[in-house]
Amino acid sequence: MSAREKKRTVGRVSAPTVYDVAERSGVSIATVSRVYRTPDSVRAQTRERVLEAARELGYVPSGNARGLASRTTGVLGLCFPDYADPDAEADAEADSDADDAVMLYSDQIIRGMERAARRHGYALLIAASLEGGPESLVAKVAGRVDGFAVLAQTVPTEDLEVISRRLPVVMLAGPREIDHLDHIVVANVDGERELTRHLIEDHGLRRLAFIGGDTDSPDAEARFRGFQEACRDAGIPVPDAPTVRTAMMTQAEGAGAAERLLDGGGQRPEAVLFANDQMAVGALRALARRGVRVPEDMAVTGFDGIPLSRIVQPPLTTVRQPIRQLGEQAVELLVQRLNNAGREPVSLTLPVSPIRRRSCGCG
Amino acid sequence: MSAREKKRTVGRVSAPTVYDVAERSGVSIATVSRVYRTPDSVRAQTRERVLEAARELGYVPSGNARGLASRTTGVLGLCFPDYADPDAEADAEADSDADDAVMLYSDQIIRGMERAARRHGYALLIAASLEGGPESLVAKVAGRVDGFAVLAQTVPTEDLEVISRRLPVVMLAGPREIDHLDHIVVANVDGERELTRHLIEDHGLRRLAFIGGDTDSPDAEARFRGFQEACRDAGIPVPDAPTVRTAMMTQAEGAGAAERLLDGGGQRPEAVLFANDQMAVGALRALARRGVRVPEDMAVTGFDGIPLSRIVQPPLTTVRQPIRQLGEQAVELLVQRLNNAGREPVSLTLPVSPIRRRSCGCG
Repeated sequence: MSAREKKRTVGRVSAPTVYDVAERSGVSIATVSRVYRTPDSVRAQTRERVLEAARELGYVPSGNARGLASRTTGVLGLCFPDYADPDAEADAEADSDADDAVMLYSDQIIRGMERAARRHGYALLIAASLEGGPESLVAKVAGRVDGFAVLAQTVPTEDLEVISRRLPVVMLAGPREIDHLDHIVVANVDGERELTRHLIEDHGLRRLAFIGGDTDSPDAEARFRGFQEACRDAGIPVPDAPTVRTAMMTQAEGAGAAERLLDGGGQRPEAVLFANDQMAVGALRALARRGVRVPEDMAVTGFDGIPLSRIVQPPLTTVRQPIRQLGEQAVELLVQRLNNAGREPVSLTLPVSPIRRRSCGCG
Repeated sequence: MSAREKKRTVGRVSAPTVYDVAERSGVSIATVSRVYRTPDSVRAQTRERVLEAARELGYVPSGNARGLASRTTGVLGLCFPDYADPDAEADAEADSDADDAVMLYSDQIIRGMERAARRHGYALLIAASLEGGPESLVAKVAGRVDGFAVLAQTVPTEDLEVISRRLPVVMLAGPREIDHLDHIVVANVDGERELTRHLIEDHGLRRLAFIGGDTDSPDAEARFRGFQEACRDAGIPVPDAPTVRTAMMTQAEGAGAAERLLDGGGQRPEAVLFANDQMAVGALRALARRGVRVPEDMAVTGFDGIPLSRIVQPPLTTVRQPIRQLGEQAVELLVQRLNNAGREPVSLTLPVSPIRRRSCGCG
């Protein structure tokens, strides 16, 4: 490559503008602009001349300028919390073969949104929350998209209030904190109630323990409510609170909770329902170490349907969340609202699927 | 909610501007702008007053306007082809438990890029190629990002030539078509050469067949070259072309290729090397149907290290591609170039990992 070429390509020369394209192709800048915004409004021959000039000059229409003109971006957004998933990372580390094989929650949401966005002709901007002042996540995303989805506990409610006056916003998971926003949750209560009913009615178990998360985890709290409802329906004692609460719902905490149940004195529960799969997987390992047989001595269940739930021993009875569909539905709601800003806000509850495996006594 | 509130929130009222915020907080619009672009340059007390006014008004700084002012977006991009992955979709369908569990190639690239982009303070814009005229994929992405990565065979080379004069672009996989661009590939040649060497030297196999893809698949062609090199090194006959070529490298085509090998007459190969895992998986099923034992009667190998390769019977010997690292390295190169536009272009080759399982006679 000659030095001149190198300068032209690697060093940034000043970018050609719409004026340069207009001059070279002998048309007005309005015509150049129309070629990019509404190509059908320009005669094919003229359009070709403009595009040819643009190509020769290396002109690229600026998304920023175009966005200001048309007030749309052609982009939908997703904001999610900057959570690490230490258990999943550890699983992947422990089995380097599987390093790239395990879909995390965020991967599944992204896949669902990307597919649906593509069908509707949108690109997808994804951003994890970061520490930051005014230039925080939402400011960054909101100015660059036509609408966005936000996972629970990612963005302060008051910021969402402000932004949702200007842009369609869909809340994913968590409680419905803002009435005028579209909102999608999975059926946590129904899923756990059905799982609990199954243990009581189909397996005849009566002494049940529930291992929950922190009170500020909306998913774990909803699952506990489902557990309470099933106990009430069956006429067995309804606890006011989970038997044990953990802070992060990790495998290590699940193992610790199992130890506490064994060492607590009193009668052991016949079944332990964990608010998520990670805790249940940790508990299975702890119970095996202590010689407690699952499901013979104690049934164990989880929630989420993570891939690991299938390959642990015994395979874990759980409830599968339709996470990808959560992403797909988010896009559908955003597109609907972009087409009809006055539509009434909706709250969708996506059904979950029980997966009965050996850890509850099935299979 | 009152009708007035509803109008305020659901119907779009005209958005407050920087002028409104300046007026309400009693500062200049330049100061408001500085609060969002360079907050440290504004006294804390003033900053708070501006942000308070912005919150009261529901003002959101426009990314478009901000981008024009600062000429940066804080966003990196990824363009990939609009390929479906019919085999993987079919696998997922066949096992609804695993529906969301299988990472596709694009998921892994996205995960790698998103993590790395987040570390550097960038959001990620992802877009699959679509049919389109001037408002095509690249025009859409290029105007909205500070730089982007593009997978091979997504964007016409001439379009990339034009765009790369203005924006950093990293090419992923495929041949290096544009000298001045950064470029990352995985070591396809090395991986297949080592796999072939292993079959010849460690398992003593000499009659080898290679099942390739279309001649325009750069990955499959590179893997065939690795196969040829190992044959040459071992002093066994070097074929000019793959024994069978398939169009899409699917499971069905892999099964068909295996049938052809069995029905072709002449001596059967002792080992069949498939250019990817999907074909090898299809072949394993076809061979089982025909009563051919793997590896006893015939060794079989793949390439890619897809999750399915682990759970087929027998588990498949393959080569794992570092796909997530491809995405991570893409971000690192983009960030490097944004910090130093004059840096020489680089071409990285990421090492691959052989995975020896039972289908070659190991384990």
